[in-house]
Amino acid sequence: MAGTNRTKNSEVASGPIMVLVEPQLGENIGMAARAMLNCGLTELRLVAPRDGWPNDRAMTASSGALEVITEATVYETTEDAISDLNVVYAASARRRHALKEIITPRLAAAEMHAMPEDAKIGVLFGAEKSGLHNDDIALAGKIIEAPLNPAFASLNLSQAVLIVAWEWSQQGREVTGPELPMGHTFPAGKEELVAMFEALEDELDARGFLKPVEKRPNMVRNIRNLFQRMAMTDQEVRTMRGIISSLTQHPRKDGK
Amino acid sequence: MAGTNRTKNSEVASGPIMVLVEPQLGENIGMAARAMLNCGLTELRLVAPRDGWPNDRAMTASSGALEVITEATVYETTEDAISDLNVVYAASARRRHALKEIITPRLAAAEMHAMPEDAKIGVLFGAEKSGLHNDDIALAGKIIEAPLNPAFASLNLSQAVLIVAWEWSQQGREVTGPELPMGHTFPAGKEELVAMFEALEDELDARGFLKPVEKRPNMVRNIRNLFQRMAMTDQEVRTMRGIISSLTQHPRKDGK
Repeated sequence: MAGTNRTKNSEVASGPIMVLVEPQLGENIGMAARAMLNCGLTELRLVAPRDGWPNDRAMTASSGALEVITEATVYETTEDAISDLNVVYAASARRRHALKEIITPRLAAAEMHAMPEDAKIGVLFGAEKSGLHNDDIALAGKIIEAPLNPAFASLNLSQAVLIVAWEWSQQGREVTGPELPMGHTFPAGKEELVAMFEALEDELDARGFLKPVEKRPNMVRNIRNLFQRMAMTDQEVRTMRGIISSLTQHPRKDGK
Repeated sequence: MAGTNRTKNSEVASGPIMVLVEPQLGENIGMAARAMLNCGLTELRLVAPRDGWPNDRAMTASSGALEVITEATVYETTEDAISDLNVVYAASARRRHALKEIITPRLAAAEMHAMPEDAKIGVLFGAEKSGLHNDDIALAGKIIEAPLNPAFASLNLSQAVLIVAWEWSQQGREVTGPELPMGHTFPAGKEELVAMFEALEDELDARGFLKPVEKRPNMVRNIRNLFQRMAMTDQEVRTMRGIISSLTQHPRKDGK
């Protein structure tokens, strides 16, 4: 990848490390890697992947998330995979008998962002069929449990990784408002907007549309409110005036 | 599925309808259906799926999300698929030249929940390779764009569906605090906790650990704070007293 990209990724490299314990399907490992990189996470660890490593299906399913999938490291045991970490969470869909705090992915993300920058954080995910072993759960400080449909709560492995990675990546972005990309245009000035309104109202008056007269003020206000909601640019005001002119000054060419 | 499950799902059936436009891979359709049901969404619409419908791979990948996948409806055009909807969003990963408001999945979820209960809401997702056509985008009121790693922003189709469905399902849950499932036990009363502290401190005093005397109050406070962080149950206090007794009153049996 180009240098620019690498810089962008390294900026966010302090996010959580995803640890897949005994993953079965290469497709899921690859899709997990892709989801991680989508969210700016790069460090993937695998504990005893069933089909060995490297894995062609994982490579294909990663859709080019090479810096995650080719750099993934493999361990024999969960203990080995987490030995250098400071904080470990266990992702789990079902309730365990362990007396351990359960938090949502969103709250876990908030916790991760509040930790010292140097703290190495990991999240354990279990095998597709069976989830994490109780011994793996015992290595974690807290359990991350996504509040899902209680009648159908089992997430695909790569989807579980995505939810944790996504929530981590969205922390602190909650206040992002809507954005209207306007390119080279600009929000229309009120003067040209009012001129457009008046041109339209003139055409409507001339056709007797704004009747009866005592209702006219309210009808005009409603129409102006309606067009205000479009938040038109200067270019769009010009387009709209062209539309009004075309509708009022030119007969149909098909004679209908 | 059992009646209980169906009731649970129908409670949340007023969520957004997911509309996949020209989806290519059955696996992605199936995984999208699974992700939807995970998040309590049930209505899936397909516009001209490449490999026809029904699709065995989709069925397998849905992992039992039958009420979504078997009830999915198929349309020839996007217009047909959305004709009965009131509000339509277009999910898109890349910037378009369309002058249309762009919002995050989280903000879109907040909007959806603020709409009248009867409003039918849909979200359009494009084909795996190419995304939505510009003509499809033109049918939508707003664009949903997930803020992702700008160097690697292309989401798998089913992952994109998951993010929108997940955010919809999590609206209003932000304040969920940590939960500690305690089963039949109960948080230890302060009296038994302090008794445990005193027993431990007595053993430590007897061994000269809490020295020098002027530092003793601070050492005791530190130890008490440490153990408080465990938020012990009554049963766990009894276990800990057993551990202290064992360590102080019984010699090692291996003679080391």
